[in-house]
Amino acid sequence: MGMKAAIFGASGYAGGELVRLIDGHPSIDVTHLAANTAAGKALGEVHPHLDGGDRVLQAFDADAGAPDVAFLALPHGASAPLAAELVAGGSLVVDLGADHRFADAADYEKAYATTPPHPDQLGEWTFGLPELVDVSAASRIAVPGCYPTATTLALAPLIGAGVVSPDGVVVDALSGVTGAGRSATPATTFGAIAESVKAYGVGTHRHRPEMEHATARITGVKPSIVFTPHLVPMQRGLLSTIYATLTDGSKLDDVVGALEDAYAAAPFVKVGTESPQTRWVVGSNTCLIGAFVDEPTGTAVVVSAIDNLVKGAAGQAVQCANIASGLDETAGLSTVGWMP
Amino acid sequence: MGMKAAIFGASGYAGGELVRLIDGHPSIDVTHLAANTAAGKALGEVHPHLDGGDRVLQAFDADAGAPDVAFLALPHGASAPLAAELVAGGSLVVDLGADHRFADAADYEKAYATTPPHPDQLGEWTFGLPELVDVSAASRIAVPGCYPTATTLALAPLIGAGVVSPDGVVVDALSGVTGAGRSATPATTFGAIAESVKAYGVGTHRHRPEMEHATARITGVKPSIVFTPHLVPMQRGLLSTIYATLTDGSKLDDVVGALEDAYAAAPFVKVGTESPQTRWVVGSNTCLIGAFVDEPTGTAVVVSAIDNLVKGAAGQAVQCANIASGLDETAGLSTVGWMP
Amino acid sequence: MGMKAAIFGASGYAGGELVRLIDGHPSIDVTHLAANTAAGKALGEVHPHLDGGDRVLQAFDADAGAPDVAFLALPHGASAPLAAELVAGGSLVVDLGADHRFADAADYEKAYATTPPHPDQLGEWTFGLPELVDVSAASRIAVPGCYPTATTLALAPLIGAGVVSPDGVVVDALSGVTGAGRSATPATTFGAIAESVKAYGVGTHRHRPEMEHATARITGVKPSIVFTPHLVPMQRGLLSTIYATLTDGSKLDDVVGALEDAYAAAPFVKVGTESPQTRWVVGSNTCLIGAFVDEPTGTAVVVSAIDNLVKGAAGQAVQCANIASGLDETAGLSTVGWMP
Amino acid sequence: MGMKAAIFGASGYAGGELVRLIDGHPSIDVTHLAANTAAGKALGEVHPHLDGGDRVLQAFDADAGAPDVAFLALPHGASAPLAAELVAGGSLVVDLGADHRFADAADYEKAYATTPPHPDQLGEWTFGLPELVDVSAASRIAVPGCYPTATTLALAPLIGAGVVSPDGVVVDALSGVTGAGRSATPATTFGAIAESVKAYGVGTHRHRPEMEHATARITGVKPSIVFTPHLVPMQRGLLSTIYATLTDGSKLDDVVGALEDAYAAAPFVKVGTESPQTRWVVGSNTCLIGAFVDEPTGTAVVVSAIDNLVKGAAGQAVQCANIASGLDETAGLSTVGWMP
Repeated sequence: MGMKAAIFGASGYAGGELVRLIDGHPSIDVTHLAANTAAGKALGEVHPHLDGGDRVLQAFDADAGAPDVAFLALPHGASAPLAAELVAGGSLVVDLGADHRFADAADYEKAYATTPPHPDQLGEWTFGLPELVDVSAASRIAVPGCYPTATTLALAPLIGAGVVSPDGVVVDALSGVTGAGRSATPATTFGAIAESVKAYGVGTHRHRPEMEHATARITGVKPSIVFTPHLVPMQRGLLSTIYATLTDGSKLDDVVGALEDAYAAAPFVKVGTESPQTRWVVGSNTCLIGAFVDEPTGTAVVVSAIDNLVKGAAGQAVQCANIASGLDETAGLSTVGWMP
Repeated sequence: MGMKAAIFGASGYAGGELVRLIDGHPSIDVTHLAANTAAGKALGEVHPHLDGGDRVLQAFDADAGAPDVAFLALPHGASAPLAAELVAGGSLVVDLGADHRFADAADYEKAYATTPPHPDQLGEWTFGLPELVDVSAASRIAVPGCYPTATTLALAPLIGAGVVSPDGVVVDALSGVTGAGRSATPATTFGAIAESVKAYGVGTHRHRPEMEHATARITGVKPSIVFTPHLVPMQRGLLSTIYATLTDGSKLDDVVGALEDAYAAAPFVKVGTESPQTRWVVGSNTCLIGAFVDEPTGTAVVVSAIDNLVKGAAGQAVQCANIASGLDETAGLSTVGWMP
Repeated sequence: MGMKAAIFGASGYAGGELVRLIDGHPSIDVTHLAANTAAGKALGEVHPHLDGGDRVLQAFDADAGAPDVAFLALPHGASAPLAAELVAGGSLVVDLGADHRFADAADYEKAYATTPPHPDQLGEWTFGLPELVDVSAASRIAVPGCYPTATTLALAPLIGAGVVSPDGVVVDALSGVTGAGRSATPATTFGAIAESVKAYGVGTHRHRPEMEHATARITGVKPSIVFTPHLVPMQRGLLSTIYATLTDGSKLDDVVGALEDAYAAAPFVKVGTESPQTRWVVGSNTCLIGAFVDEPTGTAVVVSAIDNLVKGAAGQAVQCANIASGLDETAGLSTVGWMP
Repeated sequence: MGMKAAIFGASGYAGGELVRLIDGHPSIDVTHLAANTAAGKALGEVHPHLDGGDRVLQAFDADAGAPDVAFLALPHGASAPLAAELVAGGSLVVDLGADHRFADAADYEKAYATTPPHPDQLGEWTFGLPELVDVSAASRIAVPGCYPTATTLALAPLIGAGVVSPDGVVVDALSGVTGAGRSATPATTFGAIAESVKAYGVGTHRHRPEMEHATARITGVKPSIVFTPHLVPMQRGLLSTIYATLTDGSKLDDVVGALEDAYAAAPFVKVGTESPQTRWVVGSNTCLIGAFVDEPTGTAVVVSAIDNLVKGAAGQAVQCANIASGLDETAGLSTVGWMP
């Protein structure tokens, strides 16, 4: 038997992806499947597309299954207490939620307008963007959100290499509806979503400070970003289009070069000069980055595509767990997508 | 009987919308329905959702039906010769294509990398954005493209009022698939479009110079724009998200005020501080503009939504024809949408 | 001023369509807009695609606006008491709900497993399928459901003419998601609906007895129907595919002839031998019927397409009100669809 | 190295799925990737969601790669000559096309209105529905079409067990658009497909005789089927709703029992009394069957769901190849789906 994994929050979309990925993982086995309101339901009822077998979702129990690794796919604010308990029990903890993504409380408060649950422990969490942050020795990993993942992978190397200015960055991004979670609300019905697009959280979305913070942690330079997310009528997929001013003398080659240098050894990030489509990555843990330069305005335009539930959530969490556990980074993950 | 109208290019999506709108127009009657490869086909076969009756698409004939007004919904380069003939015959000509949208040949060449068909006549065309350009005395009207319509309506008043800087403007826009026309290509199949998004024409789309040119004609100030269009999986609807740097001291009130001043008397443009959804305008000739200010970066973020086939094409053409013919601007047009 | 109309249940999908249609009606004005939980909200907030103006949804009030006609778009069981009050006040009442669609209580009970709200009054209601039932003298009209509308229009004339057997009829139908109403439930989220189809209510859907009952009322012969509805990922549109055994000697000509005879004077029903698409009728009050005969098995296969919210709900209600009020049957209604 | 596989027709949707599945197969390696008009293109260009690596599509070559097994995903009529050549070379041949699905030429001619390419060889082909036909000793396997797969799996056991009558069967089925192939035509554009449904091939679809033929081969009893396929706006997924008259005394238990008996040992077919959704099987090789009985009419209503490109094409082909090669039937195949 391999490593033992607990999944907390198994009934949501990200939780379902965690089950799917770990069920197919060669070295990790799911030993505790926990949900909140869905506790007691059969896995096959909650996720009919998975091999439910006779598994039933359990109530949260930090000790159940004696997990070597615990994945937390919980609403904001719900991770911290459970994480503390799991850490105390010796588990590697990978948090897919937002509770531990900031290194200091002030930044968290600015983003969330509330005090972080365990401010004293924020510094002990490693930011789980494994292409740009070393997570190999981490015991607590906070996986970034879907927008910050796609955006930071494309932006941070350019700022780090001095190819673009950190000021006046515009991030305009599109997400499929699973990014909004699985809850049924008037805004997530088919009638409200199909055949329509909208911007939301203009100027106020919490992923903006997270992107700025992440880039600062990685490059030492904090960018200034305007961020507008849009909801588009599709299930999965996230596309981030990033506009940044080229520094003097920088050209397309420099943009591409900075990205290629950053990801020369990365199995899941592919850099090119073609515009990626989200259908090329849906189902896989791949991030495709297409780099352009707008000559008349001296702007780098970089387009980054991921599956919001895989590289933007569950896949990245497994990738981090692999590295922190000494497994092959790619174990249980795929670079092959599903479409059409 | 009312005014007589000829529609050239009746078999495409914009052509179909022209038929729909003019069939419902109280003062204009369709007297010549012309198509190119679809000539000879029944209207009801080409557009089964319309009241085809026994109407059949005709070959192009500038004289047929002695049109008071002619609408041209043709591919790039196909309008100019026909327009010249129609003008000579005394018709009001409304061109939905790109042949006459630039006031001078040099700009046209920069956008299209070819000489305009009738360079000497470019100056005789009026730019058909009737909220911002007076078309009442025009006899030749070049209706703007869908992206320039949504974008210029939101941007030009801000530049005209000095509320935002004309430099460093970013326009990031999303369009439904009907914006790509009705032809069947590998890129427009359901398999290629559904459940995916992509950016296209990054840095090279011809609507960028058109937007810059339009704003310059309207305000006297030529902005510098980076423009990225995206294709999203829906039939209709276009959303343009515009980022522009606020000038010193400008605030949200100034942004909203400049827009409200511009459209106080406009029946089809509504200004607010809410993020519009394309489903709110699909089917109508309305443009909804939602204005925001991103305080940390001093950026105006303005979101503009239209139906690409109505306000972005056929509806705006009818609106222009109404004004230039002395009819009520709103005749035959609706502010009521269809969704869901 | 024209007739005064009250709309009860204005916040749902069918209610929104009633507002859209009556706002555009030449002889009827909306004088009372009522909703239940949405009372107090602005119409423009609830239906942003409509011309909300300064209208606000009111609490239910049978006397408000002294309506000449009242439209009820309410959940099952909610219509009866209000209808009784409105009838007493002298209004023409058009009920889009299910409370009054059965002529006798026993049939109602079989379909709904509960006693009808006002069993004594069932006989006073006219079944609002105006192509097949005379509603001109009615003061209380129960408009059929969407599946029974599309199905009965295609099936009843064939049974009435003796062209097909009333036994062993199979009705297999597809509906867009608006047919399930506007409430947000786990089953109506985009995530649950997009990219998937399902059958539901197999053998138990309440529209089966309604179809049998309707055909019996119209033809005097009660058919035996197996009915399976399916939910498909689209907003609007309903397609019913009907299989019925040809009686001895009947051929395609007889099938088409029986339908053409029934609808020779009907402005909204078109009969042909082509397979209709729902996109051809979405937005219009049209029902398209395509008739086929499967020679090897001696089966009539008839396909019927409507917009579930127009001919299947609000449009048919307006059509009934027009006839019962002595107006032109087509007033305020369109045979022109919207797609794409 | 494992078995060597050649894939002919690798550029289509089914071909892409074959590459995806065999790339992930533990015991089979792709050694020849061939396409017709797409020969010379990079695999990564044709299928950007796959791991293209440096692979390039080749021209057809029956000898290339000395295949142990050859998969043919070709248009009607194109398989036969190539298959003959491959058989001569000793390859196991698995044909996903229609050329060899009939055991005798007369049936083929009735379905296709033309003589089969190699009428003399039809008898040498095994029908590749491995749950119901023994393919373990086959060297030439003709995999059924998507509609016949879903339908025959649900229907044949009921007829075989005498639970339903073979006469008067109605099959009403829904397919995603990938079932129509990858070619760009006016009927497969997003504009023609999204937000609409239609029936097609009413009474004339070639899968009807294939279903009848398949059931006859399996049970010895030829049913009489009326079949209507519908196109619905989704990428993948196929749902077949089957109506058959219960024989005297048969009840739901008998229906379920006949199916359970048939699939007690089948790893990919699951029988229940719940209505399956296509989203539960998309991406997997699973067929879900939900059985119902309509008491009032004595009708068995059975709903069968598959992924048309997996169990309905590439997955079933791999399953057949596994069995005929002595591998584990499930090798390289999954029972885990993808949705949402």
